[in-house]
This record gives sequence, structure tokens and C-alpha cells, in this order.
Amino acid sequence: MRRGRRQAAATRQGDVKQIAIQQSPFTPPQNHMAPLQPLSDDQISAIHETSLRIISEIGIEVMSDKARTLYRDMGGEVDDASQIVRLDPDIILEKIALAPSKFTLTPWDSAHSLTIGGNQLNFGMVSGAPNVHDAIHGRRSGNLADYTNFIKLGQSFNTIHFFGNQTLAPNDLPVNTRHLTTNLINLTHSSKIFLSMSIGKTRVLDTANMLAIARGLPVEALADSPSCITNISINSPRKFDSEMSDAAIALAELGQAVVVTPFTLMGAMTPVTLAAALAQQNAEALFAIALLQHVRAGAPVVYGGFTSNVDMKSGAPAFGTPENSLANMAGGQLARHYKLPYRTSACSASNTVDAQAVWETQMALWGAATGHGNMIYHAAGWGEGGLVASYEKLVVDCEMLQAMTAMLQPIQFEADDFGFEAIKETLPGGHFFGSDHTLARYQTAFYSPFLSNWQNHESWQQAGAKGATERATDIWQDMLATYEMPGLAQDRVEALEAYVAKRCEEIGSSDI
Amino acid sequence: MRRGRRQAAATRQGDVKQIAIQQSPFTPPQNHMAPLQPLSDDQISAIHETSLRIISEIGIEVMSDKARTLYRDMGGEVDDASQIVRLDPDIILEKIALAPSKFTLTPWDSAHSLTIGGNQLNFGMVSGAPNVHDAIHGRRSGNLADYTNFIKLGQSFNTIHFFGNQTLAPNDLPVNTRHLTTNLINLTHSSKIFLSMSIGKTRVLDTANMLAIARGLPVEALADSPSCITNISINSPRKFDSEMSDAAIALAELGQAVVVTPFTLMGAMTPVTLAAALAQQNAEALFAIALLQHVRAGAPVVYGGFTSNVDMKSGAPAFGTPENSLANMAGGQLARHYKLPYRTSACSASNTVDAQAVWETQMALWGAATGHGNMIYHAAGWGEGGLVASYEKLVVDCEMLQAMTAMLQPIQFEADDFGFEAIKETLPGGHFFGSDHTLARYQTAFYSPFLSNWQNHESWQQAGAKGATERATDIWQDMLATYEMPGLAQDRVEALEAYVAKRCEEIGSSDI
Repeated sequence: MRRGRRQAAATRQGDVKQIAIQQSPFTPPQNHMAPLQPLSDDQISAIHETSLRIISEIGIEVMSDKARTLYRDMGGEVDDASQIVRLDPDIILEKIALAPSKFTLTPWDSAHSLTIGGNQLNFGMVSGAPNVHDAIHGRRSGNLADYTNFIKLGQSFNTIHFFGNQTLAPNDLPVNTRHLTTNLINLTHSSKIFLSMSIGKTRVLDTANMLAIARGLPVEALADSPSCITNISINSPRKFDSEMSDAAIALAELGQAVVVTPFTLMGAMTPVTLAAALAQQNAEALFAIALLQHVRAGAPVVYGGFTSNVDMKSGAPAFGTPENSLANMAGGQLARHYKLPYRTSACSASNTVDAQAVWETQMALWGAATGHGNMIYHAAGWGEGGLVASYEKLVVDCEMLQAMTAMLQPIQFEADDFGFEAIKETLPGGHFFGSDHTLARYQTAFYSPFLSNWQNHESWQQAGAKGATERATDIWQDMLATYEMPGLAQDRVEALEAYVAKRCEEIGSSDI
Repeated sequence: MRRGRRQAAATRQGDVKQIAIQQSPFTPPQNHMAPLQPLSDDQISAIHETSLRIISEIGIEVMSDKARTLYRDMGGEVDDASQIVRLDPDIILEKIALAPSKFTLTPWDSAHSLTIGGNQLNFGMVSGAPNVHDAIHGRRSGNLADYTNFIKLGQSFNTIHFFGNQTLAPNDLPVNTRHLTTNLINLTHSSKIFLSMSIGKTRVLDTANMLAIARGLPVEALADSPSCITNISINSPRKFDSEMSDAAIALAELGQAVVVTPFTLMGAMTPVTLAAALAQQNAEALFAIALLQHVRAGAPVVYGGFTSNVDMKSGAPAFGTPENSLANMAGGQLARHYKLPYRTSACSASNTVDAQAVWETQMALWGAATGHGNMIYHAAGWGEGGLVASYEKLVVDCEMLQAMTAMLQPIQFEADDFGFEAIKETLPGGHFFGSDHTLARYQTAFYSPFLSNWQNHESWQQAGAKGATERATDIWQDMLATYEMPGLAQDRVEALEAYVAKRCEEIGSSDI
């Protein structure tokens, strides 16, 4: 089994506690094993048929005039009084067939380009948390300083492949220009793909313009090489609001990517059964994707699944449950049924970075990975069911994502990997530590974690008996202290700053 | 999706903090999904061929005179000076083909019978830990009181299907009669399958005799309905010691079950590559299983895998690594290649019940479950790479095993599970909490964890901000306080006590 792992930590400066973690390189994994498939072919057909009935018989409320006009133009039956739109199955399927099964997203540093589709897994950072927590300063409202730190950390961890929209909410910034500030931070402090805010047309267009500036391209050129991506949710059940549809339409017009993720928590936003939740998820996702393919045939889109359950005793959302794990796999079956790339998530509802946080994240992550999720959202740093971005959980999750990546490397071996001579030469009951076969391979033979502690109990006690979450605190502090900017060219930085200044002036203090 | 979960906690007595956890019933899961298969067919063939070359060209040291005689009798090439035995591939394969692919183990309470084989997963308790730990009393040497507590807890947790050999070492008991005491505790405090100590012939025969007494059968009758099972390891590389072979032969003669598990930590007991480790594991397992089929054709056997890696910096064993997870899947492919039941494990090396303990256990558990492990050893309560049995980890692991079991339930649904009318009647953007469809199903719709906390952050803080490991402390205390004996008939208890008294007198203080 041959594996590459190297990359020393960046050069150290100053008086920092040097953790010097070793990371695996930035290489989104491919899952070469067949996906786990909890649904039978008959069940997929039944979900498919039911979802088409939901769209054609019950319909979906579309709040945007522009979107309703487009649906009418597609051949949809539009009731302007109720805003309900119904679409024939034939129309849906004809439009869905236009979507690409795979596409590439290119940030300003093309070394961080991502293939979205096939069996490639891309791991994304927590998105949209209103609060932030670390073990030193405690829990607080999201703010720009922590936002910036999370971008730095996501840039530094090789296993983070993209940023979700607004890792944490910078609540100290004005709402109407917040997206400009955070876009600027993303583009100057990171060279990785990030998702745009999807609230209305203006914000996604600002993001597309800024991405074009960062790449030194006219914005129209992004159509040949998409950089911009957003995630829209359907306000389940069956409500497609204007902010979401108009943002999605604007990006599709530019040939940029849209993830459509119905917000389907079983028991609350869908009926309580997995069958119903998947049918409703499927209906809502296909309904929006069909619109985007009507806007621009071949526009890059992603089928999103966010089906989990609520606690029926309290109504609280739950993640990493058995149902969520299964839904992550089943969603992949549905996306592949339509030959669409697939977005899923790896979430937890725990209030702290404890055993529960980890088993829930692992249950969801294994569902996502074995289900061949192409974008695994909220995969690092998400806590409290999305209400907090956690520094310590970010580090713990990055260790888990890196280990998952190592597990997914294809097993490759040749005749000399069997070490037949080494086995022959080693006495029964002996050991292989000193054999030539071992010495030639030991440095890269195994995955090397940065957060695990394998000391014996006495040594661990003497070293302070720190658990993984405590060790994580040391690591994120060190990574921030040794962070280096990725080096966007100065003239582009200045052009971005000028764009932000101009737009802030245009927007003024009014909401957009 | 229909699932059964209920079973109120046992009736409470006395002044105990009432946790009253709800558990899923005792039902070992079936994994209906296809197994994950990291090895290609060509790779399985290459491992197969190499392992046969190890057995036929290099050979294995067999320390027992009795075993060497049997190998010679099978047609093996035996060198009595070096004690090396070599076997032709034809002989190996002919013998292996005699083994059953599936069998049933029946304890005195047949409600706790286990099918070993097919796609059934059976979860086992930690085995062989020299130390014990809980959050109240700290870490201490294994002892009879804690041993008894672990048997009580394993009996109480429905998701524990069997006990590994000597959950923890009762170091306060004399070595030579320890097995009699612990067998008596297992048989009186639990009605579940447990593994016998495998050190020499005498101990396994004592266990078989005691199982026969508990079932009210002559020991010979166990051949028709096996109760006794032991696990032997090969002292890797290539050393088969007398205590192990003689115990295994004695049980095979009685038609009782033997798990053969080579102790193959990559880099230490095998070469550093997964290819070599799996070839050596395969050679050592097949070599012993062939012997047992020669002793008694059709004797129940299990192919065991315990391939993980060591930390090449320190030599310390590591578990739940990417390599361990893959080896758990690959071992299943090899066992199925020979149509043998498969034993694997879910271990962790962490020094405490922290995030690392959980991600390592989850990585190993998912490897074991997706690899269709039939016996998943050390699946609850194992810490420090096997050096400690942990009360808190036992509770955390039982939650994770129960959740895994729920995830593996086949998704079943019928037309009315789609809730089409409920979707139709619920307004866009509304919710389903009050719909008839929900009310008819909500109580059993979702898996109900006993250890997860889904309170909002404020409520969780007000309730004491306990993490999962702290909540586990409350649970095991309550379970011990409300434990009830399983009710082995009094005459059989007395017969067992008499057997133990007689054997203790026979054995005296000398080692056996």
C-alpha cells in the first residue's frame, strides 16, 4: 500500500508553542468502493414516482414573480393567486437530463480546484453558525475576528477543501455589506473555493464579480470555468422563496454553480417517515434544478440532501442519528439516479466537543462517504446542531476527515509488498521492527494522525493527561500563530478593495 | 420505516437516581447491504496464494507434541527438531472446506442464542483487560468485584450479545482456579454466551462441563447444540503454542466452537504492509482451522482477524486507524472467500473516554460492520489498546452499538408511509408536528438514544453542562443499582457450585 503523506508545517516565527503538526496533502479523496445502498431499486422508483406526483399534483409555492414567469415559460401550470406551481413529470425529467453529472470549480489558485461529481469527496467547513466557541474564551456571538480566524484555519488544514457560506456569522458587521467584507477576507486569506451568500441576486453577483477580479478575468469568462457556487435551500415543505430563487437564477445565468438543498427534517418539515422525507426532498430538489436548467441548459447544479430527524419529544433537530446516516446514503442513490452530483453533510447536535459530538459526526460522515457524497458540508467545526462554530471541533473533525481520506485510498500492492523473504527470515514469535523490508517502508507505511495520542498510560499521565479536545486547543492556537497568507497578487487585492469600497458606497446603509 | 424499540427499564427499587434508560431489544442486527470490499478479486487471489506459500514453504512452529502428531497424520511435513510444520495447499483447502459457514451458539437461556455466520453481527464486550477504570474511583488493577459488575452490565445492556473471555482480569483470584470462579459468575449473573479461557485443555473442558450443567445436559450433548466457544491466537509470526492448540483441539473434539485469531500488528508481528499482514493472518488462521477440521470434520470455527498497525515511532499498538478499518473489511472478504464466519474487533488506543476513543472505535466499528463481521470483539468498554476495561466507555460504546444496529435495520415502507395526503394538507412553509400521519407514527418513528443530549445550549448549561462521558457515569451506576439476576434454576446453581468446589479441591494451589 503506497501512500503519500508529508508537508512539514510552515516555518515558525516568534515565541509560539510549536506543535508542528504533519498533515496529508490537499487531495480530495475518491471513494473507489461501491457505495452503500440502503434503498432497493423498487424503493427508488417509488420515491421517484411519489416526488413527481408531489410536483405535478400538489405543487410548490414560488414567491418570486420572475421564477413563476420562468416556470410558466417551461410549461408549468401557475396559479398566481396561491403562487403554486405544478409541473408535468415529462418537463421535470427533460430539464433534469440537461444538467452535467460532473463539473470543476476553479478558485484563483487553481491548485485548489475541485471536481464536483463522480466518486470524489470534497469536505467543507461549517457554515452559517451564529455563535462561536473555543475552550479559552468560551461561547460568544459570531464576529469578524473569529470569522477571519476560521478562514485562516480552513486555509491551513489541507483536509478542508472548501468553505461553506459564512462559516460563522460576523454579527458585528452591517448586514447589507457583510458579504463584501467576508468575500474579501475569503479571497485574500484563502485560495480555496467558498460558497456565496444566497440571499437575493445582488449578493451572488457581487461574489461572482469579486471572483472574476481575483482570477483576473471578465465575469462573463467564468461561464467557461466556474468559480462561484451558492447553496439554496427550499423552505420545506414546498416553499421556494424569492431570495433563494433569484440568487440561484442569477448564478445559473452566469453559468455558475448552485446547490439545491431542501431543508427536510423528518417530523417537522416533512412527514415522520424516511420514505416521505426522501420523496419530498426529491420533489423540492428536482423542482428547483429543473428551473435552473431552463434558465441555462447545462448550468452546473448539485442535488442536495439534508434529511435528518427531530427529537419527537422536544422538536429539537438531531444529527448523526441512524436515520440521518441512512438518509445520507439514500440521497446519494437518488442523486445518481438522475446523474447529478450530490451534496450531503456531517453534522452533530452535541453541546460540547465530547463523545456524542464525535459519534454523531462519524455516523453522518460514514453515511456521507459510503453514500458517495461529492460535497460534504459542515464537515468541520459544526456544533450544537449548527448554532456554534467550534475551534476545538474543527481540529477534531480535520483529524477525522484526514483519517477518512487515508482509509479511502485504494489498496495497491505488488509482489514485493508481501515481504515473503522477511517472513521467511523472521523467527517464529519474533518481530519485524528491524527487517530490511520494514526499514525500507516504515516512514510512509501508515497514516500519521496529528491529534491521536498513543502514549502508554503512565507517559500520558506524566504529560498532563490531556484529552483530544484539550490537545486540539494547542493545535489551533499554533496554526493561527504560524498561518501564512496565500499570496493573492497585490494588484488584485487592491482591485478587490476598490470594488468593495465602491459597492459599500452604492449600498449605503440600506438593506439590499 | 418500521422499527421496534421499547422495553422499559426494570422495576426500580430503593433510593437510586432514576435514569430509566430505554433500550432497543436484544436483536443482533443483520447487515442487508452489500459489504464494503477494498480488495479486488486479483488481490484476494494474491493473498490466498502467498498465504499458502507461507504454510507450505516456510511453515509454522507448532510447540505441542499432540498437535504436531495430528499435523503429521493429516499429511503435513513435520520437523521435530525445529517443530516447524509445513502443509501442502491441497491439504489445507480440503480441510477448510469441511468447516460450516454458519452455526448457532446456545447459552442456558436460548433467548440469547446467537447465529454466527451469514450477515449477522454480534457485538462482544471487552476481553482480557488487566486494569479497570471508572470516573468515580479511578484506575485500578482488575478484580473480582469489578469483573462481576461488568458481567451485570453486559447482561443489562441488550446490545451486548456475548462476553469476550475474561472481560477484565480478576487479579485478586488465584490464577489456577480463576476460570472456575469467573465461569460461575458468568453463568449465574448472565444468560448470554461467553468465551472460555483458552489456556490449555483443562480450562476449556471445565467451561464445557459447567455449560452442560447450566443447560441440564450431558457434556456430550453439546456437540449437537454448541454452547462453548473460545478464542485462540497465533503468537504471530508463525508460532502456535501448546496452550492454545491443546485448548482448541479439546473443544473441537467436543464439537464446540473455536475462533482462530492471529495477532498481526503490522510493523511488529508482520511486515509493515497490509498485503503482507493479510497474507500472514490468512496463513496462520487457515493453518489452525485446518487442524481443527482434521480433529473433527464440521466442528464450528471462526476466521479471526486482528490486523492493525503499530506507531512506528514508538512501537505502540494503534487501533481504529485507517489501516485497521480497511483490514476489518478485507478480513471479511478473506473469510467469505473460504465460506467461514468472521470475527473482527472495534478497538481504541486512547487513554481516556474522549473524542479520540470515539473516532477510533467508530472507524473500527464501521470497518467491522460494513465488512460483515459476525463477531465484533472488544466492541464495548475497551480502552488504552486493551489495557483497561472502562465503565464509561462501556456505556458510550453501547449507545454507539445500538445506533449502529438501528442504522442497519432494512428500510421498509409501503404506500401510506409516503404521507402524500399529509404533504398535500400541510401548507407550504408549515410543519407536520400535528398531522394525523405524524401522530400515528411519532412514538416509534425514530431511533431513541439513551445517551445523547439534544437540549438547547441554555437548557443544557442549566442542567449542569454534562458531557456524554459524565452522563455515562450516571447510567452505569443506575444500571448496577437496578440489575436483576437472570434466574438460572436453583438446582443448577447448586450443581455448578458443587462442581467448582470439587474442581478447586482437585486443583489445589498448583498451576494447571
